Amino acid sequence: MTAYARLTARATRIATIREAQSMLDWDASAMMPLGGGDARGDQIAVLAGLAHGLSIAPDVADDLAAAEAAPPADAWDAENLRLLRHAHTRATALPSDLVEATARACSDTERTWRQARADADFALVAPKLENLIALMREQATGLAPALNLTPYDAMMDGYQRGVTAADVNPVFADYVSFLTDALPRAEELQAKRGTPLPLQGPFAEDVQEALCRRLSAQAGLEPEHSRLDRSTHPFCGGTPTDVRITTRYRTDDFGQALMGVLHETGHALYERGLPTAYARQPVGEAAGMAAHESQSLIIEMQASRSDAFLSWLGPQLQTLFGGDPATYAQGNLARTMRRIHRGFIRVDADEMTYPAHVILRFRLEQALISGDLKVPDLRAAWNDGLHALLGIRPANDREGVLQDIHWYCGLYGYFPSYSLGAMAAAQLMAAARRAVPEIDMALAQGNFAPLVGWLRTNVHAKGSRYGFNDLLLHATGKKLDPSDFQAHLTQRYLT
Amino acid sequence: MTAYARLTARATRIATIREAQSMLDWDASAMMPLGGGDARGDQIAVLAGLAHGLSIAPDVADDLAAAEAAPPADAWDAENLRLLRHAHTRATALPSDLVEATARACSDTERTWRQARADADFALVAPKLENLIALMREQATGLAPALNLTPYDAMMDGYQRGVTAADVNPVFADYVSFLTDALPRAEELQAKRGTPLPLQGPFAEDVQEALCRRLSAQAGLEPEHSRLDRSTHPFCGGTPTDVRITTRYRTDDFGQALMGVLHETGHALYERGLPTAYARQPVGEAAGMAAHESQSLIIEMQASRSDAFLSWLGPQLQTLFGGDPATYAQGNLARTMRRIHRGFIRVDADEMTYPAHVILRFRLEQALISGDLKVPDLRAAWNDGLHALLGIRPANDREGVLQDIHWYCGLYGYFPSYSLGAMAAAQLMAAARRAVPEIDMALAQGNFAPLVGWLRTNVHAKGSRYGFNDLLLHATGKKLDPSDFQAHLTQRYLT
Repeated sequence: MTAYARLTARATRIATIREAQSMLDWDASAMMPLGGGDARGDQIAVLAGLAHGLSIAPDVADDLAAAEAAPPADAWDAENLRLLRHAHTRATALPSDLVEATARACSDTERTWRQARADADFALVAPKLENLIALMREQATGLAPALNLTPYDAMMDGYQRGVTAADVNPVFADYVSFLTDALPRAEELQAKRGTPLPLQGPFAEDVQEALCRRLSAQAGLEPEHSRLDRSTHPFCGGTPTDVRITTRYRTDDFGQALMGVLHETGHALYERGLPTAYARQPVGEAAGMAAHESQSLIIEMQASRSDAFLSWLGPQLQTLFGGDPATYAQGNLARTMRRIHRGFIRVDADEMTYPAHVILRFRLEQALISGDLKVPDLRAAWNDGLHALLGIRPANDREGVLQDIHWYCGLYGYFPSYSLGAMAAAQLMAAARRAVPEIDMALAQGNFAPLVGWLRTNVHAKGSRYGFNDLLLHATGKKLDPSDFQAHLTQRYLT
Repeated sequence: MTAYARLTARATRIATIREAQSMLDWDASAMMPLGGGDARGDQIAVLAGLAHGLSIAPDVADDLAAAEAAPPADAWDAENLRLLRHAHTRATALPSDLVEATARACSDTERTWRQARADADFALVAPKLENLIALMREQATGLAPALNLTPYDAMMDGYQRGVTAADVNPVFADYVSFLTDALPRAEELQAKRGTPLPLQGPFAEDVQEALCRRLSAQAGLEPEHSRLDRSTHPFCGGTPTDVRITTRYRTDDFGQALMGVLHETGHALYERGLPTAYARQPVGEAAGMAAHESQSLIIEMQASRSDAFLSWLGPQLQTLFGGDPATYAQGNLARTMRRIHRGFIRVDADEMTYPAHVILRFRLEQALISGDLKVPDLRAAWNDGLHALLGIRPANDREGVLQDIHWYCGLYGYFPSYSLGAMAAAQLMAAARRAVPEIDMALAQGNFAPLVGWLRTNVHAKGSRYGFNDLLLHATGKKLDPSDFQAHLTQRYLT
């Protein structure tokens, strides 16, 4: 057995433990009774500790050195070896007890957050959050020198390798200028066009769920490799052969579940399309969270909210839910499903204001990790920050600092991925339309196949062969270029 | 840290991995899409290997020797230490790769069994079963010398420590004589009393499910620490703070789901009532599978099919399902729910013929493990054996050798527990009635509390402080005495 073969066997074992962990995470959000929480926290922490222990075992360093002395000829394997080295650098920078303590604090804080969010009471979770952030800062400062990055960039690197705050800052600054000009103009145009006719509910949950399943399958997600369940915070979890997506239903608005499921379906299709020859190897994984978000948003925002798809969707909805056909006419449905609104909740935000929510979090989490911002000041910083960006101020913590799970389950440096993903989605959609002219005609028949086929070849099947920018370069001919996203918004909301 | 403290810390870690494994097992049966099967098999095998690796680590032997040199003064801890030694003996008798290969073969064979059972085609799974049995024989012959037991007893020891085939043989031989005499007499009496009026279905699944939840909660299972789902083969899984029970529903017969859920609730109550001070330690676990089955059967067979409980249940059922009130009258309901029938399916069997199903499997699995019986001859041996015991012959493999999951997921030596449990349940019920005279009056009001309270104190809270026979001795004043079961059957079916 070669050193490289030993490394990949070990990676497979670690990935398999992580799969178990991923199923337990899914279960905790979608299935677990409340009373199972303490034990679940222990289970996940122990598995995290075991996976970490395997990755830092002394012979890994020897095997890495030996493999690097005679790297594999195959480009995929060569990249896999580089990613194994990178993972080893990250893993050895942190002691196992810190990793396990952080995993435990994440489970614990997340559970308290659920209660705090229900009660709209930030104070309830603040002490646990403070403790968790202290652990995250310890991780960040431990990782930074090993990766030759700033502490915050070291956190970002865990979600989107190769992209730093310095890369993101100008992109976001540019977006703030765009938004300052575009948002009032879009609102004015929207007002001039009048309020859409309201869709007539209530919309039965079981009918919504059946529709979600049908559209998800239509987009290409195979029921024999996936589940759709319910959870407070919709997400895509599980493993590449057993993807678990979740949503939540409101009987007064089917749009949230419908578009939410299409969003998670985009994530799920990426997992399903990863190269099976490199399953459970770093190079066979998704290329990072910004890449992942580009796949959810290209299905949700680019495809499913397009004029073409909505023109097909309207009559389906009218058949299912009844009510006035005029409300489901393409123009009215588009005005309903693509409404610009300065709101408090990120996950409910339209695509134009969404980056503002991300920019707020990006600023705040950098300050939390640097120590410039303390938990007792977080709520005020949030409320002031949102006001500066969108001119609105949350009435309570549920609409403010408690709305997202991320900071309460240890995800710091993750938020920028959402907007980088939105920008990449627009760039990929433009390239896909150039390459496959029949995409929109197919969407107008409820058919995602031409788009998803292009994504399979140009994104999914590439795994982590390339980083975020090189993936875009290969697929679209250029690195991340925010102008495609601004062009998309201009075309959709300002013309 | 003392040697004993190191041992208990390690036991906690191992038990926590096993909890994760248990949740993945539950998920595989109740939730997982078919396409997730291969990956799940790997996940479970890797966790099994990690737990096994921890239990055989070289320092465990040193710690055991050191702890045994100065054993804990506390009786619970002293017993825990003995159980840790026993577990270590079992674990070190087997190489890790055999344990992991067996776990993998179990997942694989079980999945093929699901297909084979659906198709009633034993040949489909026979090659995998042959391979699995070869691995099980390797385990049995590896364990036998270490435990100073025969190979089959070494397997039994894994489910009900301290009980051997030599203990069980006379008990089962005695039961065969009892049955030879009692079954025809019970059938004659039943025929004389006439066929019960048929309960009028269909019985909507959602109404059945709501009733099952209600009765399960009424028996004492807390919804915040449990779930009820569906699976092909009903079972009780999960962990003590997060118990997962499953059932299956038939719209033409609510009895199967209703009594099945009460049965699994009995298992679940045992897990919920285990001593939390010894959670994740061997002495804090259930006292074995025969003890476990006594707890499911005391709830299902002894309590829920008693005249007292059925007199309360009838009107509840009539209100839910409608139909002729005479069909739900206590006498008619009892004749329906306690019908003696020579059937093919063990899990559907009445309590008088049930031991015959177990005795058949007990004989066959001993022969499979000894090598006297080969897989190609298993089907014929099954069909002939059932005919010898009950005078009936299965028409197909689904009604015969494919009906139970056990042999296809590596459970050999488990079957005797069912009938030892049935006998123990009768013995415990007799003792409980002597100690708490209001048990039946409470059951007649749908109230399980007096019975379950007695079980909590005398069985659940004892954990593994005693073995099967000593547990009975402390709770009932005598070791296993099959005459209580025969007296129960005589009273219920022959008078």
